[in-house]
Amino acid sequence: MNVLFIMADQFRWDHLGCAGHPYLKTPHLDALAARGVRFANAFVNSGVCGPSRMSYYTGRYPVSHGATWNRVPLSVGEVTLGEMLKGAGLTLALAGKTHVMPDRQGLARLQLEGGSELATLLARGGFEEIDRYDGHHAPGTESGYPAFLRAMGYGGDDPWSEHVIAALGPGGELLSGWHMRHCHLPARVQEAHSETAYMTDQAMAFVDRVGDRPWVLHLSYVKPHWPYMAPAPYHALYTAGQCLPVLRSAAERDDEHPVLAAYRQHEESVSFQRDDCIRTVRPAYQGLISQLDHHLGRLFAHLDARRQLKDTLVVFTADHGDYLGDHWLGEKELFHDTVQKVPFIVCDPRPQADATRGRVESRFVEAVDVVPTLLEALDVPVPTHRVEGRSLLPLLHGQAPADWRDMAYSELDYSWRQARLTLGKTRLERCRAFSLRTERWRYVYWLDEPEQLYDLQADPDEMHDLGRADGSAAVRAGLRERLLAFLAARRHRTTVTDAQNLAGTAQHKRAGVFYGQW
Amino acid sequence: MNVLFIMADQFRWDHLGCAGHPYLKTPHLDALAARGVRFANAFVNSGVCGPSRMSYYTGRYPVSHGATWNRVPLSVGEVTLGEMLKGAGLTLALAGKTHVMPDRQGLARLQLEGGSELATLLARGGFEEIDRYDGHHAPGTESGYPAFLRAMGYGGDDPWSEHVIAALGPGGELLSGWHMRHCHLPARVQEAHSETAYMTDQAMAFVDRVGDRPWVLHLSYVKPHWPYMAPAPYHALYTAGQCLPVLRSAAERDDEHPVLAAYRQHEESVSFQRDDCIRTVRPAYQGLISQLDHHLGRLFAHLDARRQLKDTLVVFTADHGDYLGDHWLGEKELFHDTVQKVPFIVCDPRPQADATRGRVESRFVEAVDVVPTLLEALDVPVPTHRVEGRSLLPLLHGQAPADWRDMAYSELDYSWRQARLTLGKTRLERCRAFSLRTERWRYVYWLDEPEQLYDLQADPDEMHDLGRADGSAAVRAGLRERLLAFLAARRHRTTVTDAQNLAGTAQHKRAGVFYGQW
Repeated sequence: MNVLFIMADQFRWDHLGCAGHPYLKTPHLDALAARGVRFANAFVNSGVCGPSRMSYYTGRYPVSHGATWNRVPLSVGEVTLGEMLKGAGLTLALAGKTHVMPDRQGLARLQLEGGSELATLLARGGFEEIDRYDGHHAPGTESGYPAFLRAMGYGGDDPWSEHVIAALGPGGELLSGWHMRHCHLPARVQEAHSETAYMTDQAMAFVDRVGDRPWVLHLSYVKPHWPYMAPAPYHALYTAGQCLPVLRSAAERDDEHPVLAAYRQHEESVSFQRDDCIRTVRPAYQGLISQLDHHLGRLFAHLDARRQLKDTLVVFTADHGDYLGDHWLGEKELFHDTVQKVPFIVCDPRPQADATRGRVESRFVEAVDVVPTLLEALDVPVPTHRVEGRSLLPLLHGQAPADWRDMAYSELDYSWRQARLTLGKTRLERCRAFSLRTERWRYVYWLDEPEQLYDLQADPDEMHDLGRADGSAAVRAGLRERLLAFLAARRHRTTVTDAQNLAGTAQHKRAGVFYGQW
Repeated sequence: MNVLFIMADQFRWDHLGCAGHPYLKTPHLDALAARGVRFANAFVNSGVCGPSRMSYYTGRYPVSHGATWNRVPLSVGEVTLGEMLKGAGLTLALAGKTHVMPDRQGLARLQLEGGSELATLLARGGFEEIDRYDGHHAPGTESGYPAFLRAMGYGGDDPWSEHVIAALGPGGELLSGWHMRHCHLPARVQEAHSETAYMTDQAMAFVDRVGDRPWVLHLSYVKPHWPYMAPAPYHALYTAGQCLPVLRSAAERDDEHPVLAAYRQHEESVSFQRDDCIRTVRPAYQGLISQLDHHLGRLFAHLDARRQLKDTLVVFTADHGDYLGDHWLGEKELFHDTVQKVPFIVCDPRPQADATRGRVESRFVEAVDVVPTLLEALDVPVPTHRVEGRSLLPLLHGQAPADWRDMAYSELDYSWRQARLTLGKTRLERCRAFSLRTERWRYVYWLDEPEQLYDLQADPDEMHDLGRADGSAAVRAGLRERLLAFLAARRHRTTVTDAQNLAGTAQHKRAGVFYGQW
């Protein structure tokens, strides 16, 4: 069996046709959902690219893997999916983005800088890179995309900045997609030469190259993440009126939570507090999604033509959503479903999964579940002393585990953000928040700041923060208890396997140690 | 300046003359306390050798360093005092015990098995071993002690088992010190050839060898830890009547905490529930302490004769205490002051510390404080993104920091013990307990088990567990809050320094990333 693990960047859970979006068309993702299971309560373990992805790649929560924000390297002590598969003779190939930063301090300390195969694998987070493309800035030599652009005739000092994320103004002037006011214009790149098209081509070429040998591919798109420049015709596929209503209320600005208030002063939030920004960006964002869907259709058709779709387990998900103005915020990071809930579709092609095809599963799943799911599907033992997620195969195969989790966990390290400076904080390790999402509640515990609490039954759009309301003190206390129990049970003991622990229990006499005898 | 960091193994805080023991004589430790500061509220971060020592060596709590029990290796990802000093050109020499286990899985994974200098240093926890001697079982070639014993004429297959921890019975038969009923007898080793004498000799020879170059020595004794065999005359220095009263009450056995009940079924607890065991072992334990004190006197005199005592910062402490029958328990691990509080004396020879000589300091200090204290004393920068303890130099230098901690933290992983099997637990990561000790309260949070709470004001001997008492629910809730805040603020982000984090805050535009602009 092959594995195709697809990730989109900053893709909101509610921006899927099959999730009920009234205008947005995602026929190929909808078809994938019809062939597999769509998880309607799928949550990331951080609303930030880096830590979220490291949870996807290690099966561990950020509090355990330690890569708490973007560009914080994953420690060389952490083991990723790629390395787990390597031990079993499988290779995890990468086309696209991982956001992995090499742990240069750790590698230097361990004298692993020499460019050996091991050092390279560790620096790349366990991935064999077909084409590494992290997006959001001019790509370097780690990707073939700049050379491709030049070969296709795109000139200038920086074809990415001047074409891929740029448009032409009425007077022929160059307008950068970094300014969101330009996002209604088509990007200066042909659709077939866009980032999404290019990376799909890379994936298809990989599949062709590998032939009939089994493969594991992480195809990781940089869209619909900003800069929100879509190539024609996708820039104009939707009107502002065909976008979801903005989830915000004036009441949210009354007695704001201090950290949310600080985030609302960030440039991206101030911009998205403008109606014209929302009306400009949201249609482009939807266009980028429809474009992505189109290319997934192309890829699935390619696999089908090679008769590989029937042998390929497909996971489609995202690293987090995008506020796009919801809750008076731009970007992501904080704790609302807009950001924390993600699309999550898994299609297991094997007969055991036939009973669940087309099912919408409402049990809670998390980013950390991908590693154990893929390992189990590939018959690779799960290192249970490290991995904190849970295999989804029972759910895919129609079982109903009685002890399935009833909450999702997420966290934030905002020490890297302007908000920390706004709030005058200098104790970095205390710029942290920890959130639990149950069916009924969204709870956030902030060090040194008030709690947040939303009653999703009465307030599904998370408009009324009960974090300081007297009437919900008992609910908050109960959720604090759950959070304490959660943090107390993390997998800290990573140097000994569970099997060794089980076999080593009460064995001192076997080691020649006979204490306590009278 | 030199540093002499002395650790004793399983040395109770209340077994010091200067701490008020009415019979036990420890004149040389008392003199050290008179020259320095004795910390009367010093606590370990685990009541188990391995995790406690790893906290002493990393400056990090067990929940952060991950070596949660004995023989659980410290991850190669963790940095110890020895490595921190190495970066500054200083060497941490070891004479005695560290309980460091090589992280063989981690070293193999990183291809660091070849016996390189780095691999050797990592396998030894950052120590340069003069003589590694972990004790409690027949020493191997890592120590010169077996060869020394043979050179001194001790024969047999295993001179340690047959002489050092053995006695002769009335009929000339060999009696093993593993049976505590024999601990009133003298060990079959001359005092000058005992473990304590030998390791002191090693330290003195090291000091002589090094000469006038500055040195950092960790002298780590395996006594007064079991087997409790003292050589003459120390086996008979004290009578049972000259020992501290046993801290236990019948009420402790009523409605026992489930985990304590399971520990009380361990062989060492059953033995120490016998009065004859207590009356046999405690005098020998005190004898071993007086012997240790005697050799410390010898070492201090040697340094003084070399005119080095005035240039040597001395830390004396222990990895935990010993129940010796208190609370119907043997050994250690659980959460009573008998185990968690330790002797802790620091003598800073520099003039800045003159004002505090002889002081008894009651502020709370913890094992994790040793690393930052020694680093600061040696002018080596403290890696604050890893180290969780706090330098004691301000207290030694007569300052009164307003924000000093008002609690100590400790934890336990009992997945390795018979108690887990007795309780029928299979979820290893849930066999954990977390304790806070404030001036007023000893609180213990157990996953899946009731809490423990002792009111040290009303009940200084910790006899009455209020963990399930209605009247103390609010106190427990408050302490749970503190524990949650503690666990939420651990140093997880170890791959980026604090300076990098501070400098990297809100710097995306410098990296060419311009999101959020309208």
